[in-house]
Amino acid sequence: MPNSKEISLAVIRRLPRYYRFLDELKQQNIYKTSSKELSEKIGLTASQIRQDLNCFGGFGQQGYGYNVDELYDEIGKILGLDQQTEAILIGAGNLGRAVTNHMDFVNRGFKLTGIFDQNPELVGQSIKGIEIMNTSQLGAFFYNNKPKVAILCIPKTVAPAISQSLIDLGVKGFWNFSHCDIVSTNSNIVVENVHLSDSLMTLSYKVSQLK
Amino acid sequence: MPNSKEISLAVIRRLPRYYRFLDELKQQNIYKTSSKELSEKIGLTASQIRQDLNCFGGFGQQGYGYNVDELYDEIGKILGLDQQTEAILIGAGNLGRAVTNHMDFVNRGFKLTGIFDQNPELVGQSIKGIEIMNTSQLGAFFYNNKPKVAILCIPKTVAPAISQSLIDLGVKGFWNFSHCDIVSTNSNIVVENVHLSDSLMTLSYKVSQLK
Repeated sequence: MPNSKEISLAVIRRLPRYYRFLDELKQQNIYKTSSKELSEKIGLTASQIRQDLNCFGGFGQQGYGYNVDELYDEIGKILGLDQQTEAILIGAGNLGRAVTNHMDFVNRGFKLTGIFDQNPELVGQSIKGIEIMNTSQLGAFFYNNKPKVAILCIPKTVAPAISQSLIDLGVKGFWNFSHCDIVSTNSNIVVENVHLSDSLMTLSYKVSQLK
Repeated sequence: MPNSKEISLAVIRRLPRYYRFLDELKQQNIYKTSSKELSEKIGLTASQIRQDLNCFGGFGQQGYGYNVDELYDEIGKILGLDQQTEAILIGAGNLGRAVTNHMDFVNRGFKLTGIFDQNPELVGQSIKGIEIMNTSQLGAFFYNNKPKVAILCIPKTVAPAISQSLIDLGVKGFWNFSHCDIVSTNSNIVVENVHLSDSLMTLSYKVSQLK
């Protein structure tokens, strides 16, 4: 496997999709697949898929196809899904609650260890067995734990200040659902901005193009 | 403005980001901006931004920059945000509830007119003033209304069957939060799949690359 730093982020962004489909095949006890079959399921061309997987070298054999288990494990390793990076959630409103309940953090490389909100009515309640703490307890929490990632489900007005204070506390990565882009100018901080409204606007465009 | 069908989806996907930043400028009563300023806020290169906006022609003047209101309105039109396309939500669990509460549908081109769930305990409750109906009432609802888009917040096991029955009822577009890709082989059906877990896995990769 070549140094994955050489792989473009566009290729990396397609790997989770392959990973999910391979998981489905595994669950159906299917042991091998082809770029043609993946292509039909995923909606990318077979040649795109071959090209993507060739980036990592050694996958697939001409005339045999791909070994499902092997490819699944390798993609999981490339994505770092075995890391169990410690993460905390900031903001336990509707969205934070849905994200926590909906996501399978453990199988996606993370371990959720703390939930924080500044609303005293939410503090003390639990989501998925984790008690919501007051945001004022963040300093103490970081003293005892070393969460590397913060999931931000907070209003955009407070996102810049809170993300900066989390960086000061030692956070290295953000999964950001706030309605603002966190643009990292620091190469030691990584960010995934989730903009549901961008996806909705893209759908609006697609709908407008329908005959 | 050229026919927007000629514009690649990659460019279209960046337009919502421009649109959001222009909205922020408008709210700060800022009337003009430059590709350099947009570049700093958005995290794309100024030349990428100029190239994107040139696709639509006529925006910006050398030495003056962009008129914020004009650019905002034009991008809104390209994205079809003035359409008010009728949409329904299928699945009023945690995620469906969060999406409904969190999204500003009206300013993103849509009007949410119905919410459906098969859980009798949820039927009759309201989200944002819309009463949750039983999924069994879908046929009658479509008889009286013509929702063009369905937002799917349902388990992946039921997504294929439900999306097919919605297509049969007349749905032309899906905003799909289910853990499965709806791949449209019909050019008259458009889909935006939202895979939060793909974003989380991409973050896992980025975190794994940190020194």
